[in-house]
Amino acid sequence: MKPRNAGCRAAVGCSAIIMEKIPPPLPGSLAGVMLAHMSADATAPDPALLALREAMRGFAAERDWDQFHSPKNLAAALSVEAAELLEHFQWLTEDASRALPAEARARVAEEMADVLLYLVRLADKLDVDLAAAAVAKIAHNARKYPVEKSRGSSRKYTEL
Amino acid sequence: MKPRNAGCRAAVGCSAIIMEKIPPPLPGSLAGVMLAHMSADATAPDPALLALREAMRGFAAERDWDQFHSPKNLAAALSVEAAELLEHFQWLTEDASRALPAEARARVAEEMADVLLYLVRLADKLDVDLAAAAVAKIAHNARKYPVEKSRGSSRKYTEL
Amino acid sequence: MKPRNAGCRAAVGCSAIIMEKIPPPLPGSLAGVMLAHMSADATAPDPALLALREAMRGFAAERDWDQFHSPKNLAAALSVEAAELLEHFQWLTEDASRALPAEARARVAEEMADVLLYLVRLADKLDVDLAAAAVAKIAHNARKYPVEKSRGSSRKYTEL
Amino acid sequence: MKPRNAGCRAAVGCSAIIMEKIPPPLPGSLAGVMLAHMSADATAPDPALLALREAMRGFAAERDWDQFHSPKNLAAALSVEAAELLEHFQWLTEDASRALPAEARARVAEEMADVLLYLVRLADKLDVDLAAAAVAKIAHNARKYPVEKSRGSSRKYTEL
Repeated sequence: MKPRNAGCRAAVGCSAIIMEKIPPPLPGSLAGVMLAHMSADATAPDPALLALREAMRGFAAERDWDQFHSPKNLAAALSVEAAELLEHFQWLTEDASRALPAEARARVAEEMADVLLYLVRLADKLDVDLAAAAVAKIAHNARKYPVEKSRGSSRKYTEL
Repeated sequence: MKPRNAGCRAAVGCSAIIMEKIPPPLPGSLAGVMLAHMSADATAPDPALLALREAMRGFAAERDWDQFHSPKNLAAALSVEAAELLEHFQWLTEDASRALPAEARARVAEEMADVLLYLVRLADKLDVDLAAAAVAKIAHNARKYPVEKSRGSSRKYTEL
Repeated sequence: MKPRNAGCRAAVGCSAIIMEKIPPPLPGSLAGVMLAHMSADATAPDPALLALREAMRGFAAERDWDQFHSPKNLAAALSVEAAELLEHFQWLTEDASRALPAEARARVAEEMADVLLYLVRLADKLDVDLAAAAVAKIAHNARKYPVEKSRGSSRKYTEL
Repeated sequence: MKPRNAGCRAAVGCSAIIMEKIPPPLPGSLAGVMLAHMSADATAPDPALLALREAMRGFAAERDWDQFHSPKNLAAALSVEAAELLEHFQWLTEDASRALPAEARARVAEEMADVLLYLVRLADKLDVDLAAAAVAKIAHNARKYPVEKSRGSSRKYTEL
């Protein structure tokens, strides 16, 4: 089978391909703002995600942990870390969650890091381009939640 | 109050600061591999995460959704998306999870994108540098799970 | 406002009402088996769930914790406990999960207890009859997953 | 191997055993309230949980689903259902979560039922007595959160 994204096996660093499929956005629109930020380097690998992927590969290899890192297990571990993140907020009011003390924020940042690390690891195992998938998902969400219908409403798209 | 990481307000793009606190790694070690990948651009913003942050800001602003995006709510939403990701794997064997059909993988990639988008949004709201937090967490995990003690074992660090 | 289930405010102990709405099942069928077990006491309160509800009420009242126990917060806490339960299994093979050592099983039982306690507490706050809701859901699932279509398959009902 | 709780294989219906280990509570205390509710039937099986267990057994057997119901998979499925429950609350204020419209409450009750059903199924597979585990956990929590230290505070026991 021809590889997905032939010529772009970097998994977390190739946003250019997906960009080709999207018609040029109106200036000032959401997609326009986004592309303005992406354009300078849309064809370059994303250094942070790429570095994390390599670091996680090395980390697992050194410990012989690939045997545990099936996508199923990684998805479970990611979900567990997301809940550990949520645990910090479960009894807080929304206002209190907007004003975390420095120490709490540091621990929250650690849980967020854990989520990102498992996400990068899962993307590596499934050969998913995370950044490209996120860009495509924002475009998808923009269609699911048209501005005029969803403004100021938290309803699910199925109920708009 | 003096901003955290003065001079580095990019929130998702400043890995340089945290790097200063870590002693130089041995060449060939995990941290060495990681830094080799980071070094070229450790002081530059990460284009993909930065673009996603801006896109999410625009997306929420257009829909007047900032009112819903308290850190508490975003943490809950992230956790829900992580579970939707897990749902795809819950009845699969580990082997089946390693060999997803193309269609299933595409849907899994969408759920992964949702997790990343909420993570980026939460990082923005809390002014957390995601990439730097992840780099710091890998270093922290390397200390919690020394190679010689954790090789081939899935035990938690508290039980090594 | 007239209470839901007038005459049945026990919240976790009134299965009789929902039973009236369900046509009598064929003997030997799933619903038949279920009703055979329920029939002796379908009109009586369920002592265990009732006792847990009362214990949780007392526990929260003594600590002035009602202020934290909004349904939103309880749903988050329940989700966090469910993830703590999952954490015990995340790196195990399915076979290993079927053969937990006694100590691991004891810790798993504690996490299961936490899930049940928050579930009972949430049911109390929302005035939901847990046992009746579960009976109704099994009947609903039996219609969503007809035996002949779902035998030996883990596919979601939307894909049968 | 001698069965755990010899003479009490009902898995979800034997609260008597654990009760023997707990010293008699002061009248009017939490444990006193709890035992007053339990005492009439602490030695009898809990009809609702027992009926649900039997119904789930039949449901799975008819569909040949035991092959999918490893404890690992059931823990994942339970966690996914808990997140679906949380999804209903993620964008609501706490006050709104206390005043759900009837339709929303009905859907919430369905998700709660799903959580309970997987919990009962997992308890069956692991031979855990859910009601007894919950009673023991409340007693444990009462020790972890002494009234005088935890009154009006949502802090974790590790920070009291």
